[in-house]
Amino acid sequence: MPKFRHGFRVNWVDTDALAVVHFSNYFRYFEKAEQEFYERHGKKEAEVMKEMNLAFPRVDAKCTYESPLHFGDEAETELSLSRISDRSVSIDFEIRNVTEGKRAAHGSMTLVCVDTRSWKAVSIPAEIREMFSSMG
Amino acid sequence: MPKFRHGFRVNWVDTDALAVVHFSNYFRYFEKAEQEFYERHGKKEAEVMKEMNLAFPRVDAKCTYESPLHFGDEAETELSLSRISDRSVSIDFEIRNVTEGKRAAHGSMTLVCVDTRSWKAVSIPAEIREMFSSMG
Amino acid sequence: MPKFRHGFRVNWVDTDALAVVHFSNYFRYFEKAEQEFYERHGKKEAEVMKEMNLAFPRVDAKCTYESPLHFGDEAETELSLSRISDRSVSIDFEIRNVTEGKRAAHGSMTLVCVDTRSWKAVSIPAEIREMFSSMG
Amino acid sequence: MPKFRHGFRVNWVDTDALAVVHFSNYFRYFEKAEQEFYERHGKKEAEVMKEMNLAFPRVDAKCTYESPLHFGDEAETELSLSRISDRSVSIDFEIRNVTEGKRAAHGSMTLVCVDTRSWKAVSIPAEIREMFSSMG
Repeated sequence: MPKFRHGFRVNWVDTDALAVVHFSNYFRYFEKAEQEFYERHGKKEAEVMKEMNLAFPRVDAKCTYESPLHFGDEAETELSLSRISDRSVSIDFEIRNVTEGKRAAHGSMTLVCVDTRSWKAVSIPAEIREMFSSMG
Repeated sequence: MPKFRHGFRVNWVDTDALAVVHFSNYFRYFEKAEQEFYERHGKKEAEVMKEMNLAFPRVDAKCTYESPLHFGDEAETELSLSRISDRSVSIDFEIRNVTEGKRAAHGSMTLVCVDTRSWKAVSIPAEIREMFSSMG
Repeated sequence: MPKFRHGFRVNWVDTDALAVVHFSNYFRYFEKAEQEFYERHGKKEAEVMKEMNLAFPRVDAKCTYESPLHFGDEAETELSLSRISDRSVSIDFEIRNVTEGKRAAHGSMTLVCVDTRSWKAVSIPAEIREMFSSMG
Repeated sequence: MPKFRHGFRVNWVDTDALAVVHFSNYFRYFEKAEQEFYERHGKKEAEVMKEMNLAFPRVDAKCTYESPLHFGDEAETELSLSRISDRSVSIDFEIRNVTEGKRAAHGSMTLVCVDTRSWKAVSIPAEIREMFSSMG
């Protein structure tokens, strides 16, 4: 199964005074790919959150930086499922600098499924579990 | 009456690849000074919002950029009341680059008082009106 | 001549605790549309900046907020040229909430052409002037 | 030796539509504490970078989220040295929600000392090594 990939161009505002993307923004690129992953599955993350009273806050986030990204670079975030349990899901990501043909970074996130009314961890609904399981 | 001033040091993440503060961040500096203005008056903006079910979304924001800010520069935001009506308040701001002894930018904002339950404009409560009126 | 339009989906990170897009991010949406405008003309803004030693810092930015944007909303930024002089260009923008069929905001920016080696204002090169003039 | 601590108040713009601080901003809080750490040692990070032609890009960043931060919360970042080698330094951090008396997050970063002219890793200068070693 091919992995999910989301292509994008680096924004000016994402850079810092060293003329490279600020390290915190890689986590935002991951999050953007996550939103696009829902879209690819015909879902809107915003609607899932609202209709199911769910959110997926992160409990863990890490990233290893390999090569910088610059303004305007073509880049690509690849997501792959690393582990799914009853109430949480761990996703690995890679960000590639397509312009330079190099891997820019890789990392992982652990998301917990919470009910936004109680802010308590709950089981991931079957439909969402299925979606994540198809991630590759 | 002396004007309200909030001093700060420019963050690394606020800069862009030209090694100056990104223009959008000046609006965030204004907002930070606004939060500190509440504190100076013994209030917490977060509590005012929660207890009174109020928010002050912007209807208008503008800024003129005069001289760049750089990482680590000492800066200062000065707020002054330009106009207050029943449901809205207009605030002028100046941002000074203290390190370089220059004005960095000036601008203004118009904030409307809304009830966060209805998202409708409402009268600014007397206590908050008084606080804004003391801005100088 | 049809105006330039750039479609996008609102990011999670762009929202604030009122569950709407933070007002400062509208300026970043404008900037993103500007980058995509270069792409539409077969240019890369990053390369123009590097090869011509040019940058277009803002001297003026303003925005009027009409209707909020929420996470996941389909939106569209429309750019139109308001004025072009020897060394500066003023661009009007509108941001539409396509999901809700409403205008979210409108505003304008004035950009000055500077030589990044001297940080002095210089004439806009013919090729770039032509590009901006085709904005509609 | 007491550890380095930097106190701050959570900004409005740092929150997201769940009314908590966006997870990427914890990395920015870490960075802000790092800047203040230089100040505490009578140095300006910006001047160190400029005068020594040095930068400390991250090669690794991770964070575990324990309890949310909200707009206006009093918070505190604590830094402690975990490891220092010839060319890199690893720093652990904890972010505490002082308002709620809870730990909000903990994590670590590895920074590599690079020469900004060659973008190559170089030895950490003695003066900077000494500063980091005093971190506690």
